Amino acid sequence: MKFTIQKDLLLESIQHVMKAISSRVTIPILTGIKIEASYEGIKLTGSDSDISIESFIPSEEDGIIHVENIEPGSIVVQSKYFPDIIRKLPLKTVEINTTEDYKVNIISGGSEFHLNGQDPNEYPQLPVLYTENSFTLSNSVLKEIIKQTVYAVSTVETRPILTGVNMTLNNDALNFVATDSHRLASRHLSIELVENQLNLKNVVIPGKSLGELNKIIEENDDPISISVTENQILFQTKNLYFLSRLLDGNYPETSRLIPDHSKTTILTNTKQLLNAIDRASLLARENKNNVVKLETKGNNRLEISGHTPEVGQVIEEVNAEAIDGEELKISFSAKYMLDALKIIESENVKIEFTGAMRPFIIKPENDHDILQLILPVRTF
Amino acid sequence: MKFTIQKDLLLESIQHVMKAISSRVTIPILTGIKIEASYEGIKLTGSDSDISIESFIPSEEDGIIHVENIEPGSIVVQSKYFPDIIRKLPLKTVEINTTEDYKVNIISGGSEFHLNGQDPNEYPQLPVLYTENSFTLSNSVLKEIIKQTVYAVSTVETRPILTGVNMTLNNDALNFVATDSHRLASRHLSIELVENQLNLKNVVIPGKSLGELNKIIEENDDPISISVTENQILFQTKNLYFLSRLLDGNYPETSRLIPDHSKTTILTNTKQLLNAIDRASLLARENKNNVVKLETKGNNRLEISGHTPEVGQVIEEVNAEAIDGEELKISFSAKYMLDALKIIESENVKIEFTGAMRPFIIKPENDHDILQLILPVRTF
Repeated sequence: MKFTIQKDLLLESIQHVMKAISSRVTIPILTGIKIEASYEGIKLTGSDSDISIESFIPSEEDGIIHVENIEPGSIVVQSKYFPDIIRKLPLKTVEINTTEDYKVNIISGGSEFHLNGQDPNEYPQLPVLYTENSFTLSNSVLKEIIKQTVYAVSTVETRPILTGVNMTLNNDALNFVATDSHRLASRHLSIELVENQLNLKNVVIPGKSLGELNKIIEENDDPISISVTENQILFQTKNLYFLSRLLDGNYPETSRLIPDHSKTTILTNTKQLLNAIDRASLLARENKNNVVKLETKGNNRLEISGHTPEVGQVIEEVNAEAIDGEELKISFSAKYMLDALKIIESENVKIEFTGAMRPFIIKPENDHDILQLILPVRTF
Repeated sequence: MKFTIQKDLLLESIQHVMKAISSRVTIPILTGIKIEASYEGIKLTGSDSDISIESFIPSEEDGIIHVENIEPGSIVVQSKYFPDIIRKLPLKTVEINTTEDYKVNIISGGSEFHLNGQDPNEYPQLPVLYTENSFTLSNSVLKEIIKQTVYAVSTVETRPILTGVNMTLNNDALNFVATDSHRLASRHLSIELVENQLNLKNVVIPGKSLGELNKIIEENDDPISISVTENQILFQTKNLYFLSRLLDGNYPETSRLIPDHSKTTILTNTKQLLNAIDRASLLARENKNNVVKLETKGNNRLEISGHTPEVGQVIEEVNAEAIDGEELKISFSAKYMLDALKIIESENVKIEFTGAMRPFIIKPENDHDILQLILPVRTF
């Protein structure tokens, strides 16, 4: 194998596939990066069995040459050293070639690295996904959906299925739901499936996979194709192939958790409320769960308070746009509320309560596609 | 106590005094920040007994009002909460007042914090330094000197005196020396003492103190006065008072370590050498001491190499400006060499060797005020 490549492009691809590589894998060769050279370009692969990522650098793109002097072949290099080496090379291009005994030579200017590589035939074959079950979003829409839901997955393994995001798709609607059983985040998206009828129900994507995917895909409107089989999901863009296993088990029915009526409704400035709760939580840090209290007052005022006996107390007054319905005193996790408010981009947020001990709904003003739910904490 | 102050100024002062505050102090009240209000302004104090920092915010400066509505008094607040609270306040100004039972009220916009404070009379009095032994540098020169020496102090406590920087001063020369016994950094500065004759010999300032001081003082030409007593040193600017204990014990005589002749002299581009050694060290990381090898070659060429048996090898070729004297093969810690090269700002660096087993000197081209020394490692 031999090729000369633009350093920055190689480095970007390395950083992508590194997202799938873990030092704690049972198959030692998976700590490496697989490099494959063909006349079409260079393909890098990283995998920890759960997630597999392939990143492709075409030899030529839009008339610009990225890779030259290609002799096809492949090798596996140690991921612990390879990224740093490439990043620190002196020139903008680097020549990589291999010998028959799996040595890798990396040459750039006066710099020559000779690394011990591994036999690429020992690297596990990635499954090839054959499925009709595929649909397309844009990169930026997918990033948005991930951001709006993945924060709410469970981080503990007591109910493994809750560490994933549930994706459902029927003819005209795509839904993502995540919950850790204390709060829930959901995003609805109307889509038109042009090619085929698709019905996906119990697809549960590990939160970790979506988090890594979100770091790799760029904020643009290029298409990303999503394909689903029994136990795997594939996200595919022009030069990226991101494969994740799906979680086993039945995702709980969440729709019945969402209250269908409210007793108190608050409309208030998102940023102001977020900052007030952030400050109130400063003195609620040492409490279990970081609990703050919210009370409606007269004249559309809200009072948010936090209290740690040894340290002190904080009282935040927020002037809401509108408070309708019954008076309310409620306590909840400041962290959950902050997580929910952070993903709301509209100027005002609407919060619908059905009593101090019932879950409440947080959503952007005039947007029914995003819905978040938090269970209050019993303190009264 | 009561005052209304610009939030940003208060925050800056808090960040300064926090540099002296440690959560692991034997006197519990030292985990707090002492606040004193007088009509002249607000003084904050932080201390861990070794280092004490006072930061002063004048009520008025250059005709600009920083503090208003002052009622003199003092209080001690918990440093664990106070900085975050001030940073997150909604308005640009904050009112702070205290009650008789040491409660602290912090009010900004709709935000009200009520904290438990402590009796300021329980806070230890900082020693007042009476000394004639003082001289003045500029902030930027002092920062430069610290940067050029403090990296070489010992970080282990086997010889505590080596964890400090030795400052000596006679009539016309100020010298700073640091060594961990494997490498040495020194900086010479010609100064003119206008007021008095000063002779300082065994002044050893803890490296940690200089590191913290360097973070606080700004990069400008304002004067900083340095006063020394038997066991303390005071750095003082217009609004800052930084007091550190000195280290006990005799600092070793280091001048005899510095070779007075050389057998091989190399003049080469600083940045190129630094990058080559940085890359060579990538494959020397798992060796004890991070050892790389340097060899002179014909035609003013240098070869730097690193080797980790299981991983591979790197060879870096550097074209030097000039290589004079005997041929040389030498091994040394890449980390020490990188530390030394990082503080050299001149385009070219001069390295003077007196043999593979003798300490060698690194200095900027055409600058005799900075001198660094590294002991090689025996590998041949």
